[in-house]
Amino acid sequence: MELNKKIIPARITKNMSAGELVASFESCAFGAGRLYEAVDIYREMQDDPECTKFFGLAGAMVPAGMRQIVSDMIRDREIDILVSTGANLVHDIIESMGLHHYKGTDATDDIQLKHEAVNRIYDVFLPEHHFTDLEEKLQSIFREIPEKLSITELLSHIGARLDDENSILKSAYDMGIPVYCPAIQDSIIGLQAWLYKQTKPLNVDVFADMKGLIDRCFEAKRAGVMIIGGGVPKNFILQSMLVTPRSFDYAIQLTMDRPETGGLSGATLDEARSWGKIGENARSVTVYSDATITLPMIVAAAKCRK
Amino acid sequence: MELNKKIIPARITKNMSAGELVASFESCAFGAGRLYEAVDIYREMQDDPECTKFFGLAGAMVPAGMRQIVSDMIRDREIDILVSTGANLVHDIIESMGLHHYKGTDATDDIQLKHEAVNRIYDVFLPEHHFTDLEEKLQSIFREIPEKLSITELLSHIGARLDDENSILKSAYDMGIPVYCPAIQDSIIGLQAWLYKQTKPLNVDVFADMKGLIDRCFEAKRAGVMIIGGGVPKNFILQSMLVTPRSFDYAIQLTMDRPETGGLSGATLDEARSWGKIGENARSVTVYSDATITLPMIVAAAKCRK
Amino acid sequence: MELNKKIIPARITKNMSAGELVASFESCAFGAGRLYEAVDIYREMQDDPECTKFFGLAGAMVPAGMRQIVSDMIRDREIDILVSTGANLVHDIIESMGLHHYKGTDATDDIQLKHEAVNRIYDVFLPEHHFTDLEEKLQSIFREIPEKLSITELLSHIGARLDDENSILKSAYDMGIPVYCPAIQDSIIGLQAWLYKQTKPLNVDVFADMKGLIDRCFEAKRAGVMIIGGGVPKNFILQSMLVTPRSFDYAIQLTMDRPETGGLSGATLDEARSWGKIGENARSVTVYSDATITLPMIVAAAKCRK
Amino acid sequence: MELNKKIIPARITKNMSAGELVASFESCAFGAGRLYEAVDIYREMQDDPECTKFFGLAGAMVPAGMRQIVSDMIRDREIDILVSTGANLVHDIIESMGLHHYKGTDATDDIQLKHEAVNRIYDVFLPEHHFTDLEEKLQSIFREIPEKLSITELLSHIGARLDDENSILKSAYDMGIPVYCPAIQDSIIGLQAWLYKQTKPLNVDVFADMKGLIDRCFEAKRAGVMIIGGGVPKNFILQSMLVTPRSFDYAIQLTMDRPETGGLSGATLDEARSWGKIGENARSVTVYSDATITLPMIVAAAKCRK
Repeated sequence: MELNKKIIPARITKNMSAGELVASFESCAFGAGRLYEAVDIYREMQDDPECTKFFGLAGAMVPAGMRQIVSDMIRDREIDILVSTGANLVHDIIESMGLHHYKGTDATDDIQLKHEAVNRIYDVFLPEHHFTDLEEKLQSIFREIPEKLSITELLSHIGARLDDENSILKSAYDMGIPVYCPAIQDSIIGLQAWLYKQTKPLNVDVFADMKGLIDRCFEAKRAGVMIIGGGVPKNFILQSMLVTPRSFDYAIQLTMDRPETGGLSGATLDEARSWGKIGENARSVTVYSDATITLPMIVAAAKCRK
Repeated sequence: MELNKKIIPARITKNMSAGELVASFESCAFGAGRLYEAVDIYREMQDDPECTKFFGLAGAMVPAGMRQIVSDMIRDREIDILVSTGANLVHDIIESMGLHHYKGTDATDDIQLKHEAVNRIYDVFLPEHHFTDLEEKLQSIFREIPEKLSITELLSHIGARLDDENSILKSAYDMGIPVYCPAIQDSIIGLQAWLYKQTKPLNVDVFADMKGLIDRCFEAKRAGVMIIGGGVPKNFILQSMLVTPRSFDYAIQLTMDRPETGGLSGATLDEARSWGKIGENARSVTVYSDATITLPMIVAAAKCRK
Repeated sequence: MELNKKIIPARITKNMSAGELVASFESCAFGAGRLYEAVDIYREMQDDPECTKFFGLAGAMVPAGMRQIVSDMIRDREIDILVSTGANLVHDIIESMGLHHYKGTDATDDIQLKHEAVNRIYDVFLPEHHFTDLEEKLQSIFREIPEKLSITELLSHIGARLDDENSILKSAYDMGIPVYCPAIQDSIIGLQAWLYKQTKPLNVDVFADMKGLIDRCFEAKRAGVMIIGGGVPKNFILQSMLVTPRSFDYAIQLTMDRPETGGLSGATLDEARSWGKIGENARSVTVYSDATITLPMIVAAAKCRK
Repeated sequence: MELNKKIIPARITKNMSAGELVASFESCAFGAGRLYEAVDIYREMQDDPECTKFFGLAGAMVPAGMRQIVSDMIRDREIDILVSTGANLVHDIIESMGLHHYKGTDATDDIQLKHEAVNRIYDVFLPEHHFTDLEEKLQSIFREIPEKLSITELLSHIGARLDDENSILKSAYDMGIPVYCPAIQDSIIGLQAWLYKQTKPLNVDVFADMKGLIDRCFEAKRAGVMIIGGGVPKNFILQSMLVTPRSFDYAIQLTMDRPETGGLSGATLDEARSWGKIGENARSVTVYSDATITLPMIVAAAKCRK
């Protein structure tokens, strides 16, 4: 083993920028070293003009207050293709209607919350009646869209009808970025579609989106992916590359899930190399820390260089 | 606070049964106490003739060797409705074709594995060529089924065509148990559907299954759920109950995910009470341990009483 | 890579023993496979007449109800040398005085508990006044023992004065098993020693125990270790072997801590090989699951063979 | 429940400072919200002239490159009392001798490392021969110090003899900050003491330090604690306050350990309220993220205000 890279302790200075803070981790280890590496990969990926940039969004990132960061990333062209859970999109629509999530606490009486019609997402509180407003909104949108369409087309129609520049769906629509949501039925959008279909036709083919996404994988000269939290978005992005002769050149994973219990969310990016999802020579790193902390840090540090 | 339930230390005896082992945890705390509670809830749920029993299957349980337990649960009528990730079903089909998963190791060189065409799932190895056989199987099935169908119908057609009593899909087909897979496109089944649709029509509506599942929720006099690992199956089961006036009466969750980062997989079952997904008076417990250990223990202990 | 060990799904049968349950995991993966391996190593270690068996006890195992298992292991000669946190010994003494821990809940109001003089350890409640009784007990013991002694001698004097066959300290005393507790000052025993030293002399040398333990390491023809939860007991056992030409031949670790943040509790046993603490050819396994579940399973399964 | 604090999404701007980054988390949830709260408590604690500031250092923070941050905190009077694991102090002494830790990788062959005499701490590599140099250093120090002393006195003697302003022990010595290390025997310092005691007398009383620390707790008008990683330092600090009529007024905990398995490292700070270790009205927060990321962020953000 070569011992040529000394650990150089991080040093904190007054008024240091987020970029300087992360730069001070360059020769640190554990999470600090991995965060530095993540920023370095992120910058290289953003600077690579031939790189198609995928972004997988799982976990309750929008309720936690990470919505603006993702929509800004879209508008700043840091994301070319977004794959999301349904829940993040539902909460994005709610916010875009001027309805808010509230800071609450996880140390609470959930039965009392139920009596007060407040839903809890860890330490976020959400009034139940927001979903009534959302119902009206979604039902009115469903009435305006084609009877037959794909999931990404459905999401594009929704995005077009949101009046909020900070919305993820609206930003994606404005920028022409496709939004994939493989498990859309597993969300309030799904429940509203069920309601709508009681009386009116709506046909969304579950496999219709795959061609478009796989075509993008085929066309990509180089490809990078940032994965938040794992889940369906992680697997869907990685499997789409699997059927091409290519593989990802850059990969960043921000998660707290662990590998030892075998689930895909916690699987290492090295495991993905055995499948050919991530390339043999790809740069990759996983930061095992709360993504509501590490995603902002990475984006902020990457914005500190110019 | 009443202090009326003493901690009585567990005692191990020679040749004790799995049921006696768990019984010895009755007055223990932490994971041991929770496992006892899980078995107790599981038994009550199984003994309740009016209870519709949901089962949410996430994590790589089939590759780990948990397939027989789930298919036996189906044949023993311990599961009425199954919601699964796509991956578990894909690996179930592979096994049903006489193709095996192999015990490997997580301490390995993934690039070498790639060169040898072996895919890794933590410490499970899978020869890549299994997917070639799977392709033939799925393409031939696709040619035999209706052009237009729902996901659960598609899975039922697949189950009917598997020649393996130990298969989850085959067992579900035989027993008339519906299998839901909201994110089916996020699996090799999805990739094969993409391939098939290059040349032939196939229309699987993403929202078509919701009515059947929600109807079952409406009809259930009482309802119980066992959740393995979280993910889409967890949310899909819980949200389906959300639109009914009912809620779950029994809930067991086996997971290693943690609540503090806010994702649904790690969310406590109490949080689900604030939404009305789980009832105010429902019995519920989460066991924070590897589900490949706790699921067999619970099923084995529950089988030890008669 | 050789693919010669098929994953054979576990199968649950009626009234199966704990040993049969674990045996069904033989060809499973993830936690189930590791648990099988742990039992196999445990049996080999117990059957090896030349093996000195170390046991590291961290985590609140005694409050959780794991005390009887450990004291039975001592009496059954499954442990030759015990290294423990101070807290486990304190709670062992409390139980040996006929004072109980109680099953409580983690979803509680800790300020109300404070007002009611009840201390909480996750879902275990402990009346504060137990510590008053403990104070009397410890002060009276301190008055009877030599002024100058080592930690293990102090613990032996305490064990000798406990009237409870199920006590860990009493069992160790009866069986002539040394109990090491490197961080004894970090416990109520430490606080009581401080109180005692206000008025009377007591000199316990912090390094006095090291010779005895290291001598045991030197003398051991073969050595095995079972580590519960990590912490000081894990490191103390491993570092004692470090100064000898030997290393551990068997190692089992039961923990939920994770490696990625670099702390010793979560460090893999492979990492310990780089230090020479665990031998190159040693059998070792870590089971990442709640030890209040896995320790009883391993001991029970190992008792099922005869 | 009052819903009066809206979640306001974080927004990243160019060249933002670490302080602005954390300030953008003010109305976020999950880890981001907790990190903001930690910085706010940290600032209040530092600004409180009557607050005695305790710092508990566990986990391999020094090998990871966090040494300078801690020594600067000491020199900047952000720490009044330090409680550490032995390992962090050992690695601090090694660095102070001009011997380095090196950035390695966790994906490695530990047996090969053993053959090359390189020890691994997750992704940090340490040449084994550093310990030979350390032996000489410690043996020569042992020869110069009194035969009879307390652990904190021993550490003060070592600190005085280190020629490195960036050393934690040297900084503590220079600033007159006591360093407590309850489990000192559980470290290479302990092993060297064993070696020394083979031929020469050395008597370090294990309970001698308690009076000084508890006196500081009694004297403190107000008290705050920052806990890195849990372990013995966490418990030792909290238990010392337990015997006083006081309790901590501020508490920050940075850890990845989890509460559900009952160990003290993962215990919530609310649990500590039931014991009276942390006050009813104290401000407290736990950030569940890698401390090598969160400690620098907190210190940097706190330095950004002036």
